[in-house]
Amino acid sequence: MGKVFLVGAGPGDPELLTLKAARVLAAANIVLHDSLVSAEVLAEVSPAAKIVDVGKRCGRKLLTQDEINSLLVSYTVTNEVVVRLKGGDPLVFGRAGEELQALREAKVDFEIVPGITAALGAAAAAGISLTDRRLASQILFSTFTRRPEANALEWGALSPATTLVLYMPSLDYAEVALRVQEAGLPADLPCVVVSGATGPQQQIRWTSLANLPHEEKLPAPALLIIGRVAAQRFQELAAKYWAETEGFVDGAVRPVS
Amino acid sequence: MGKVFLVGAGPGDPELLTLKAARVLAAANIVLHDSLVSAEVLAEVSPAAKIVDVGKRCGRKLLTQDEINSLLVSYTVTNEVVVRLKGGDPLVFGRAGEELQALREAKVDFEIVPGITAALGAAAAAGISLTDRRLASQILFSTFTRRPEANALEWGALSPATTLVLYMPSLDYAEVALRVQEAGLPADLPCVVVSGATGPQQQIRWTSLANLPHEEKLPAPALLIIGRVAAQRFQELAAKYWAETEGFVDGAVRPVS
Repeated sequence: MGKVFLVGAGPGDPELLTLKAARVLAAANIVLHDSLVSAEVLAEVSPAAKIVDVGKRCGRKLLTQDEINSLLVSYTVTNEVVVRLKGGDPLVFGRAGEELQALREAKVDFEIVPGITAALGAAAAAGISLTDRRLASQILFSTFTRRPEANALEWGALSPATTLVLYMPSLDYAEVALRVQEAGLPADLPCVVVSGATGPQQQIRWTSLANLPHEEKLPAPALLIIGRVAAQRFQELAAKYWAETEGFVDGAVRPVS
Repeated sequence: MGKVFLVGAGPGDPELLTLKAARVLAAANIVLHDSLVSAEVLAEVSPAAKIVDVGKRCGRKLLTQDEINSLLVSYTVTNEVVVRLKGGDPLVFGRAGEELQALREAKVDFEIVPGITAALGAAAAAGISLTDRRLASQILFSTFTRRPEANALEWGALSPATTLVLYMPSLDYAEVALRVQEAGLPADLPCVVVSGATGPQQQIRWTSLANLPHEEKLPAPALLIIGRVAAQRFQELAAKYWAETEGFVDGAVRPVS
């Protein structure tokens, strides 16, 4: 009976795999991966391993979640090292919960190898601290596309000191901007779209909620970082937001806390 | 003029360094690190490099943030590869914002190498999906100790479908549990304390907000994961929380969305 490794593939750059992930991929007998996993990362897989794409293509699933769960369990019968490879981190928006449950119920041994989640790859690419203590006190990782009904969004009263990171934002930027403003954030709040973070196709657009609808749509995988911290590269915007913090005196920025 | 690398050291296990972080550490001329960085990770640093501890000891800072900013800039005069090594990810609760600003103002070249943030190391250790789509739709990364004033907490009306991860929770578990309940979460909500995640001293305590005050205090670095997802290892608790989701029928768990 083999073992299943749920492995985070990171945001795209194969150098952002962990040492452990690279070791497990090199030892794999079979790898089941999502469509978000980059070709450069798949190149790290043992040449002897079988590679199975279980991801989505143009919104159509190749396999259902139940089928993937069953495959994971059944592959352990004849394979020592079964790898479930997911873009970013396996425990963030990756449906690992159902796979873990299936493995536990089948009494299959497993191990989780964390990965660099997309938000952190994007923040590194954009060069912004998500929790700059002068501007933000917390981060909310949420999604836009999972629950399209307007009232299903769980943002509540978003605090202006919260950095909101939207995974898989809709390409309907106007709707995204509207919903976020409905949740209480101001139109001139800065935001940044990061597409293909850390990969060869990386693109970054600095904008604001008001201007987001007019931005060019960037290809998936993309994410949207919304909040004061996204103003850090824009001194003219930053001055406004920093002025709202207690520590702002005559243009000098001091920590709030 | 050298270059500064802001590098995430990950949660503790040196195998959870990224390939890029390991490469940069092996090439470093000088490394400035926080006290959260494990000895096992520091062992990956080039033997020729100078290692400087700029962290806190028992709450007393060894160096102020301004002093660290100045050191980073000045070390690039005589060092090719200057590494600022931070526990977890450098852009999450790591004061990178001020260091990035200092580097930009001094026109020093820099690069950010993301790391596995503590929340994801802890989730992997505990084996729970932070966004199991049957139980949670988003994750809030927040802190407890940064703003001790009760009214400064920015949690707003916490949604029960939000997984709350508290970095650096106070050792006053009773106060933490109280504040979280004041923010709207129920007393019987499951939570898990993870101390020293992925390292040799790792400890995990499965509990609930009501019972948290009675748990043994675990040593730092620790974090607290609060939410329905923390019930996944407790079938008796899980049944209650899963029953509140639409998809729960006769004990069978089906996806909500």
